[in-house]
Amino acid sequence: MKTLGLALMGTGRMAHVYGPKINAHPGLRLEVVFNPRIASAQKAVELYGGRAMDDLVAVLADPAVDAVVIATPTNTHVDYIEAAANAGKPIYCEKPLDQSLDRVDRAMAALDANPVPFMLGFNRRFDPDNNALREAVRNGEIGRLNMLMSWSREPSPPPIEYVRASGGYFVDATIHDIDLLCWIAGERPIEVQALGSCMFDDQIGAEGDFDMTMTTLKMPSGALVHINNSRSCAYGFDQRLEAFGDGGMVQTLNKRYDNLVRWDNRRTVAREPLKHFFLERYDRSFFRALDEFHNAVTTNRTPSATAQDGRAALAISLACKESALSGRVVRLN
Amino acid sequence: MKTLGLALMGTGRMAHVYGPKINAHPGLRLEVVFNPRIASAQKAVELYGGRAMDDLVAVLADPAVDAVVIATPTNTHVDYIEAAANAGKPIYCEKPLDQSLDRVDRAMAALDANPVPFMLGFNRRFDPDNNALREAVRNGEIGRLNMLMSWSREPSPPPIEYVRASGGYFVDATIHDIDLLCWIAGERPIEVQALGSCMFDDQIGAEGDFDMTMTTLKMPSGALVHINNSRSCAYGFDQRLEAFGDGGMVQTLNKRYDNLVRWDNRRTVAREPLKHFFLERYDRSFFRALDEFHNAVTTNRTPSATAQDGRAALAISLACKESALSGRVVRLN
Amino acid sequence: MKTLGLALMGTGRMAHVYGPKINAHPGLRLEVVFNPRIASAQKAVELYGGRAMDDLVAVLADPAVDAVVIATPTNTHVDYIEAAANAGKPIYCEKPLDQSLDRVDRAMAALDANPVPFMLGFNRRFDPDNNALREAVRNGEIGRLNMLMSWSREPSPPPIEYVRASGGYFVDATIHDIDLLCWIAGERPIEVQALGSCMFDDQIGAEGDFDMTMTTLKMPSGALVHINNSRSCAYGFDQRLEAFGDGGMVQTLNKRYDNLVRWDNRRTVAREPLKHFFLERYDRSFFRALDEFHNAVTTNRTPSATAQDGRAALAISLACKESALSGRVVRLN
Amino acid sequence: MKTLGLALMGTGRMAHVYGPKINAHPGLRLEVVFNPRIASAQKAVELYGGRAMDDLVAVLADPAVDAVVIATPTNTHVDYIEAAANAGKPIYCEKPLDQSLDRVDRAMAALDANPVPFMLGFNRRFDPDNNALREAVRNGEIGRLNMLMSWSREPSPPPIEYVRASGGYFVDATIHDIDLLCWIAGERPIEVQALGSCMFDDQIGAEGDFDMTMTTLKMPSGALVHINNSRSCAYGFDQRLEAFGDGGMVQTLNKRYDNLVRWDNRRTVAREPLKHFFLERYDRSFFRALDEFHNAVTTNRTPSATAQDGRAALAISLACKESALSGRVVRLN
Repeated sequence: MKTLGLALMGTGRMAHVYGPKINAHPGLRLEVVFNPRIASAQKAVELYGGRAMDDLVAVLADPAVDAVVIATPTNTHVDYIEAAANAGKPIYCEKPLDQSLDRVDRAMAALDANPVPFMLGFNRRFDPDNNALREAVRNGEIGRLNMLMSWSREPSPPPIEYVRASGGYFVDATIHDIDLLCWIAGERPIEVQALGSCMFDDQIGAEGDFDMTMTTLKMPSGALVHINNSRSCAYGFDQRLEAFGDGGMVQTLNKRYDNLVRWDNRRTVAREPLKHFFLERYDRSFFRALDEFHNAVTTNRTPSATAQDGRAALAISLACKESALSGRVVRLN
Repeated sequence: MKTLGLALMGTGRMAHVYGPKINAHPGLRLEVVFNPRIASAQKAVELYGGRAMDDLVAVLADPAVDAVVIATPTNTHVDYIEAAANAGKPIYCEKPLDQSLDRVDRAMAALDANPVPFMLGFNRRFDPDNNALREAVRNGEIGRLNMLMSWSREPSPPPIEYVRASGGYFVDATIHDIDLLCWIAGERPIEVQALGSCMFDDQIGAEGDFDMTMTTLKMPSGALVHINNSRSCAYGFDQRLEAFGDGGMVQTLNKRYDNLVRWDNRRTVAREPLKHFFLERYDRSFFRALDEFHNAVTTNRTPSATAQDGRAALAISLACKESALSGRVVRLN
Repeated sequence: MKTLGLALMGTGRMAHVYGPKINAHPGLRLEVVFNPRIASAQKAVELYGGRAMDDLVAVLADPAVDAVVIATPTNTHVDYIEAAANAGKPIYCEKPLDQSLDRVDRAMAALDANPVPFMLGFNRRFDPDNNALREAVRNGEIGRLNMLMSWSREPSPPPIEYVRASGGYFVDATIHDIDLLCWIAGERPIEVQALGSCMFDDQIGAEGDFDMTMTTLKMPSGALVHINNSRSCAYGFDQRLEAFGDGGMVQTLNKRYDNLVRWDNRRTVAREPLKHFFLERYDRSFFRALDEFHNAVTTNRTPSATAQDGRAALAISLACKESALSGRVVRLN
Repeated sequence: MKTLGLALMGTGRMAHVYGPKINAHPGLRLEVVFNPRIASAQKAVELYGGRAMDDLVAVLADPAVDAVVIATPTNTHVDYIEAAANAGKPIYCEKPLDQSLDRVDRAMAALDANPVPFMLGFNRRFDPDNNALREAVRNGEIGRLNMLMSWSREPSPPPIEYVRASGGYFVDATIHDIDLLCWIAGERPIEVQALGSCMFDDQIGAEGDFDMTMTTLKMPSGALVHINNSRSCAYGFDQRLEAFGDGGMVQTLNKRYDNLVRWDNRRTVAREPLKHFFLERYDRSFFRALDEFHNAVTTNRTPSATAQDGRAALAISLACKESALSGRVVRLN
């Protein structure tokens, strides 16, 4: 297996997701951990190996670095994409590209100018169950696709600082469902409509944001899409899909820690709790996303989940926000 | 048990639903079957008993007739309500009251002038599973209610003549979900938003109607509601509810003909088909609705499912239609 | 519908099961309630109607009595069968015929001498799910039948007086499963093997009886059968079947009070408790058993569940008891 | 992590199970593949690495070999155990130890004389679901244990040569369930009873063996155990457990390839096929078994699944065979 030496850019939460997965992948090698604050980089190196560096120019000039994994704060993604593209390094970038379409366009221009392999970390596409559902849809198992539904309810609201920097709930969270559903449907919406509320965390409402939303999309084929988002969920991380076609329906069930069924004298049948949150639920998807990147780069093909996909999902999520605020259908083209 | 002599008004599809259920109820007695065309009434009498009559005045003057069950075409409901109210007879009326708010208001005025017991046949409220879900919500089992979802997908589109006379999909079908969900939530929406498509039957589209819709409601409490309607469903009559609160979630499962699980060499586990359509799925609800009417009339209490409920559901479904056509949130008060 | 006037023999627990079901059946009419103590008969008449009688000869001579339903204590069944057969009255008899093969043979001789229609109340054959499983087996849905399994776990042990008079656990309870499984398989065992324990109620053990047993039967076809019985079950009345063939498997699921699924912050998914005990679980089977009797008698055909079936089930359950006590396979012919 | 250099003894089916798992484990290193026919060893080395050797003495003297994994034909296990024990090498041995109690005792004597760490590959103990069920039982979740049930139905009969060399169905297959259930219950049976048939493969019957069996065990506590074995299963590799106690029940569900639910116009709900056979179903258990061995050897503790466990399971499975052939309960001590 051809191996790739990687520079992991950033040492925050997502870097700690990618670090162990890089080490577990036989074709990936953690060469460098980069952080402008060298102490942070050193701490991550102690956990995952590689060399700590704080000089971006040196990282991108390092001959052992075959590609970069950008896991820095969202508002720096575009800068690192530009730098890496200019240096000719293949790029895996954690989603979203950015919260602003203007800056996304800057990144895309850099990628046009220096067409390095680029992959956006829409990891949910790499979840085995989501994949199986998409295949069932694409293989015609349910006939023509009429409706798609997605539930994404998080166990508890994030800290208010996170919310403030998130670009709003649609841009932060709904964007995942949007990308996944467009990828399954094979088309992007022409109309979006959304309603939001704030019932779990008043601080979120005070920021003018929502903590639960219902979004409806209309596709060019006529298919209708519902996205159900909540910042809070008592029973865990609720992640379900439902695809309804003129020949039938397929659904993905939530994942649990085990396959036990319990019967007792109060409530029967009881099942184990759901996997707690995205780190547990999508653990394997992150690995498979890195594997797709490795495979695409080493075999000279375009990685799936492109910058264009990222731009489209951002544009749609911004349209959802506009609809929720204006009370009007927003048309897209 | 105090018994009620009933005049069954009409001999169409719904009359054939109510006839056998009246006979199966120990407190109800089918006295009269009324149809202006006496031959139709006579045919129904052969099946269900009672006396055939074609003279409305005579029916309402008949001392053996304690109450009327209106199962005539929708556009005649209001006329029969007025006549029965003027005659002082308790009324059970199949839903909807009418497709026009003006005519509904005329019926309500008649009921105000002659306050006879009146019950609207929103039979889904009387389904045992829907009831159990509502009780779970009302008892606080899921904490504060945040989201409500309803699926109502019919096995196949009705004849185009039915569609033409139906008042449109929202008024014909979504109205059921609206009534049920408002009754569960204990509140009525302040905003509605809807999108529709026509993907199953081009004739329906040619009439300017939809055969699949997604409707979103916002409640005064902030709770969000999704209604999922389709005129076609390959796997039967899909009827599900989901109530999501800050303490948990309750769902109703679809009903099947039996409790067998089948395992074979292609797909495991397989279950029996769903109950085919509303006559099979809600068979017991119709009986229980008549039982509620019997119980309320014989104990001098107001039947549940009032004319006011019917007016509200109609107004909301008309607002959904307006939203789907205009692309704008419609506000209600 | 041709109606049958019935004499209900006995006023104990089973008489209270049959009373309301006779009244709910449009083709059955409760003419007489018989008990040698007239006061007991009068109390039942107050609940279910009919006339109270304490003179057996008069009951069997009553021209309004078309048939008898024997729901007296088990050790009197044979006497009433003989009397009714001699009087030429069709007989529905609650199971078992008797606990002794000798007395059963006496009843069968009486029925041979006076061949009135006779039906034994093996109500589980009339449960819709058990029926559906049998049909699946008989229709070849699972190919050739290889294994059959039955679970019958009761919510809690009966009073010790009941146990003492029961003839032992195999004769009292396993007999139900034996009849059901032989009826599904279409054959009767050639070998039986059983092990028992007493872990729930020491009083039962002190009587030399078991409160949990595992029984294995071998059929002439080679098919193997497992019967799983327990006098106690924390989660309700566990009643399941599993039929395994060379083409697949069918199972019946336990029945619940509703179709709700509950998700909360401890255990997901939770379902409602099982139906409590046989009165709740087999409520409909008793009605359907009476309906079979009505239908057979009024159309002059032999009722299913014959005296021969009752004798065979008793003989097999006695063989199970012998095997559990001797530690040896018992062979049957 | 302390690493162990391993000699993999044998190049048959089980060696191909262990080879990749040794490579995937960060603490294990494949040093040597041993086969008296060097060509076979070389082929395995091409797949999994290490050095091919055909000289047993040299293997056991090799300083890079810290431990041996015995995956040779069953009838050679004892010889390799003796040799490795004499050489002082820790041993992981695929089950069973041997088909003869005499030879097993020889192996145990060698281990007594040279007490090296020894682990028997009862991999089902290491399945996460089986583990979770055992923990639920041990933690008292179902109160006192009353009944245990195990289903093990294989997708299709093995070649007749395999059957001939297998020692019979009880010794070849039931032994797995016996070990697992004794380990869950924490006790070993005092009585066993079994019935067998041959309905799938006449050649198996011609060998005097069974292809489906039902086995009942009685434990010292009084608990009853049912083991359900079949050499054929149309819907895949059916592997279920059920533990019933006075406080409730726990069950393990079969594992599937994905979490999709399919609804179509014939049968709803349908699920994916079961995992095909033991390589797919217990893939993770083999890895976890090796991990237990690694962990025990590197931390100087006794591995679970001892030679004594293997001897006990063999003795019980031989008693089952004796019961099935004699028609008598066999008592153990």
